[in-house]
Amino acid sequence: MAKIEMPVSQIRRYLEPGPIVLVSSALDGAHNIMTMGWYMVMEFTPSLVGCVIAGGNHSFDLIRKSRECVINLPTTALTDTVVGVGNTTGAEIDKFDRFGLTAQKADRVAAPLIVECHANFECRLADDALVDEYNFFIFEVVKAHVAKSPKHPETLHYKGDGVFMVSGKIISRRSHFRPEML
Amino acid sequence: MAKIEMPVSQIRRYLEPGPIVLVSSALDGAHNIMTMGWYMVMEFTPSLVGCVIAGGNHSFDLIRKSRECVINLPTTALTDTVVGVGNTTGAEIDKFDRFGLTAQKADRVAAPLIVECHANFECRLADDALVDEYNFFIFEVVKAHVAKSPKHPETLHYKGDGVFMVSGKIISRRSHFRPEML
Repeated sequence: MAKIEMPVSQIRRYLEPGPIVLVSSALDGAHNIMTMGWYMVMEFTPSLVGCVIAGGNHSFDLIRKSRECVINLPTTALTDTVVGVGNTTGAEIDKFDRFGLTAQKADRVAAPLIVECHANFECRLADDALVDEYNFFIFEVVKAHVAKSPKHPETLHYKGDGVFMVSGKIISRRSHFRPEML
Repeated sequence: MAKIEMPVSQIRRYLEPGPIVLVSSALDGAHNIMTMGWYMVMEFTPSLVGCVIAGGNHSFDLIRKSRECVINLPTTALTDTVVGVGNTTGAEIDKFDRFGLTAQKADRVAAPLIVECHANFECRLADDALVDEYNFFIFEVVKAHVAKSPKHPETLHYKGDGVFMVSGKIISRRSHFRPEML
């Protein structure tokens, strides 16, 4: 999938609507992928994303120790992969192999990009103050790669209980916004 | 809009898909409403939601001082209201009046519920450790009210630049989940 670099201050376009994402990580030659629904945009510049990564996840140690990850945006073409990644553990299988995903070397972090995803955001841990109490990590996105098209990929939004909402139509109310609010 | 109480541990059904929400607050007889897109579910029990509320917002002081708010879920029936609330300031107008919204007394907090919204989550500030550095508030949802129907309301998901994604179709992959992952 051909991708272009996007300013990291613009990742809200993809993350603020709340799609489920795949988080890839690496440490000492091992790598893993987890699904993540509990995250948010926190700042434009620096480009900050807050995430909850439960301590029971195999990825938790990889990310905490390496202090890096990649947030990858899957589309509905990867629905079965998203479900599979979320229902297996990297302690038992290699998820890239199992789900036929392609790992690509990132530019700024050791964690791999997932080629089949629409976008890849390379992240470094910026603040771990609330990791012990809430499993809450604040990452800075240091590089963003996005597929050239489509502009509005069909994304998956998790509702719990095995149910997803698929992204629907796009509407603009741009003319009703004050310029400084855009 | 007739609503029923929902266990607070289940709010992910409505918030995890990432819809834009309206946050109502009150302090010393004043009240206000703001739109919010930067938030996330952080825990089931206690029911925690993390939110970024920019310091420039009129709501910031009301919420910080009262240590309470209500997170209200608007549907696409309120699209123009969501845009209007986000492009005006409570320092100049009464947003309930301006946008024809009905304030209803909450059960556990002083901030009002917005009757026209599909769901209302009464919140108390649980942790302000990162408010100074990131404008990041962690709230505990102490009571949840939800409209009896529809089960999957049509919600608005903000992409920036005045553009929204409207929630689309619902798909279930429940049979592919391990029971403990549901």
